[in-house]
Amino acid sequence: MDDTTLLMIPGPTTVPKRVLDAMSQPIVNHRGAEYGEILGETTAMMSDVFQTDNPSYLLTGSGTSAMEAAIANIVEKGDKVINVVGGKFGQRLQQLTEVYGGESIEITVPWGHAVDPAEVKRVVEENDDAKALTLVHNESSTAVVNPIKEVGEIMKDYDTLFVVDTVSSLAGDNVKVQDYGLDICLTGSQKCIAAPPGMAAITVNDDAWNVIEKTNSPRYYLDLLKMKKSGEKQPAQTPYTPNVSMTYAMKEALTMVLEEGLDARIKRHHVGAEATRAAAQALGLELFANEGDYSNTLTAIKMPEGVTDDQLRGTMRNKYNIELAGGQDHLKGNVFRIGHMGLTGLFELSATFTCLEMTLKEFGFEFETGAGVAALEEVYLKN
Amino acid sequence: MDDTTLLMIPGPTTVPKRVLDAMSQPIVNHRGAEYGEILGETTAMMSDVFQTDNPSYLLTGSGTSAMEAAIANIVEKGDKVINVVGGKFGQRLQQLTEVYGGESIEITVPWGHAVDPAEVKRVVEENDDAKALTLVHNESSTAVVNPIKEVGEIMKDYDTLFVVDTVSSLAGDNVKVQDYGLDICLTGSQKCIAAPPGMAAITVNDDAWNVIEKTNSPRYYLDLLKMKKSGEKQPAQTPYTPNVSMTYAMKEALTMVLEEGLDARIKRHHVGAEATRAAAQALGLELFANEGDYSNTLTAIKMPEGVTDDQLRGTMRNKYNIELAGGQDHLKGNVFRIGHMGLTGLFELSATFTCLEMTLKEFGFEFETGAGVAALEEVYLKN
Repeated sequence: MDDTTLLMIPGPTTVPKRVLDAMSQPIVNHRGAEYGEILGETTAMMSDVFQTDNPSYLLTGSGTSAMEAAIANIVEKGDKVINVVGGKFGQRLQQLTEVYGGESIEITVPWGHAVDPAEVKRVVEENDDAKALTLVHNESSTAVVNPIKEVGEIMKDYDTLFVVDTVSSLAGDNVKVQDYGLDICLTGSQKCIAAPPGMAAITVNDDAWNVIEKTNSPRYYLDLLKMKKSGEKQPAQTPYTPNVSMTYAMKEALTMVLEEGLDARIKRHHVGAEATRAAAQALGLELFANEGDYSNTLTAIKMPEGVTDDQLRGTMRNKYNIELAGGQDHLKGNVFRIGHMGLTGLFELSATFTCLEMTLKEFGFEFETGAGVAALEEVYLKN
Repeated sequence: MDDTTLLMIPGPTTVPKRVLDAMSQPIVNHRGAEYGEILGETTAMMSDVFQTDNPSYLLTGSGTSAMEAAIANIVEKGDKVINVVGGKFGQRLQQLTEVYGGESIEITVPWGHAVDPAEVKRVVEENDDAKALTLVHNESSTAVVNPIKEVGEIMKDYDTLFVVDTVSSLAGDNVKVQDYGLDICLTGSQKCIAAPPGMAAITVNDDAWNVIEKTNSPRYYLDLLKMKKSGEKQPAQTPYTPNVSMTYAMKEALTMVLEEGLDARIKRHHVGAEATRAAAQALGLELFANEGDYSNTLTAIKMPEGVTDDQLRGTMRNKYNIELAGGQDHLKGNVFRIGHMGLTGLFELSATFTCLEMTLKEFGFEFETGAGVAALEEVYLKN
């Protein structure tokens, strides 16, 4: 490794040189045939990764811009929307619902837990006039994965749209948009896809288009109907000037996803997650998330007594050049989070746990030296 | 020159290798000190280029996202807004006004003409309850520059906010935000700044903040108050994950702007514009814009009789690898446009006019061979 900081945060993740190099290609005319071809190839790969036959659209913006696109295009004043809220990103979809005048029916989930599909069924049954249900697949603030397949099965019986945020899971965990019945699904570039931040993607099915066409909320830059219309042009276009360089990056990153194979990549993420949990527990650390609800793309670990967030993450950063994530909102100082998404795997996790062991030793923690890395090896050996 | 297509369109412009290379730097944590420093340096340079003491904000999005931010943060249902409409981008600000429920008072300007400041004064006087006046400085659909200095002078006597789009002029023509009294000014990355597309910038003064704080229109991703709050953090941040690579690109591109010197760069744009007009006229071509209203960053030329848009621009593209822009909306097929913005200068213009002469000869036009390039030389020689 060179002297670059090792990014072990839940996105942006380390971007491979192939993808960074793709961005240094010269800019082409964004209304020309060459760009249209690149855009078409990239959105087709995007749909492959979403596992849907429906088209996908690229947004020049962060994941939040796609979250806002999902809400602004379906919610108008007075619309009832069921928001599953069990972390910061569930909250964000609720805030967006309210910004656009929607009435939020909240399914409150304790931070660290996944939503219970039976509870979703109960609330959807009770509110079958709700326009949409929003769910964050992988809640990166709590390192929890929500059961989108099971919830999708339930939602098939209702007209309520199922809107799923897969910003921190797509290409790292199972997201079968069509099979699971996700009506709108969105993601970001900088997580499991391992491109730089700055682009988001969204896919929409016919049920959702029917609602979108009738929705009058103010939107312009994030207008999905305009994206659809521009996407259907020959050559394919975006309604407003796209980030051309990021389109190159997404094309290269998605090519790498499909070269690795979606299933193989997801399996690799699952192994990395299991290894991370095993290593942390071998050092006597406690996981934040409820057992069984563990995310496959990042892990939240309770800050052990006897060390502060500044000491632990500060030492990892300043002494070892490894960037871990802290807790968000009320979890600030109480947990730290390790991202194992994108291209992050055995090499990066072994370096991280080696240095985490050394950091913990420095602050007087007692465990058998090498125990974390040994546990990591065990998981990788049996997979 | 290599085999890269020469982009002579009004943005995106050719991006210098220094800027493209900057984008291939590894991604850093967007909440960390290193990114905060880069962001702070870049927004400070942005304010230098805007020529204002007020802070600037970077948006991960295209110029249109900044146009929407300008409107969504100040216009709510029923607000009166005066929109100067003399081209596609003036129209866009009007559409945005209406999307956010504003009542548009249109100052209609014939395409190809600049707005008359006296007409602005009359309409503002008549509508002194209007919340804002919107004006596109450089209307790239018609290759016209509007008199923002003169209009700014008038607007100083009114409470109506002065909102100016300088997407295709900033760093290529005179924009003194503070001196001219622009309350909100916005721009894009891919025009005279010569970075890739995908980032926009906006600056806001105290009068505008006062209005923004009281405006209740729905916005989230484009919420300026959140940008302000995040920008004031230590380290500086953006409310949502920024495009880190594009921040590197903007930093490098703005460094190049300031190395060249803002005045020298603007002068270079003025000379390029004058040379382009002289060269076109020497070939017997007619300019589209009204004399005296000519843009300094691009030139629109009437499609001469005897050749179609497909023939002229197609030959330039396919035979000579030079991309010119066509007309937009009702000007499609009736004009072609040459961008001379960003790093585009004598080399690119001489290649363009050499090949344009050869193209016109191919379609039977008669003029002294070399006349266009000679006129170009004359202008450069006397400057």
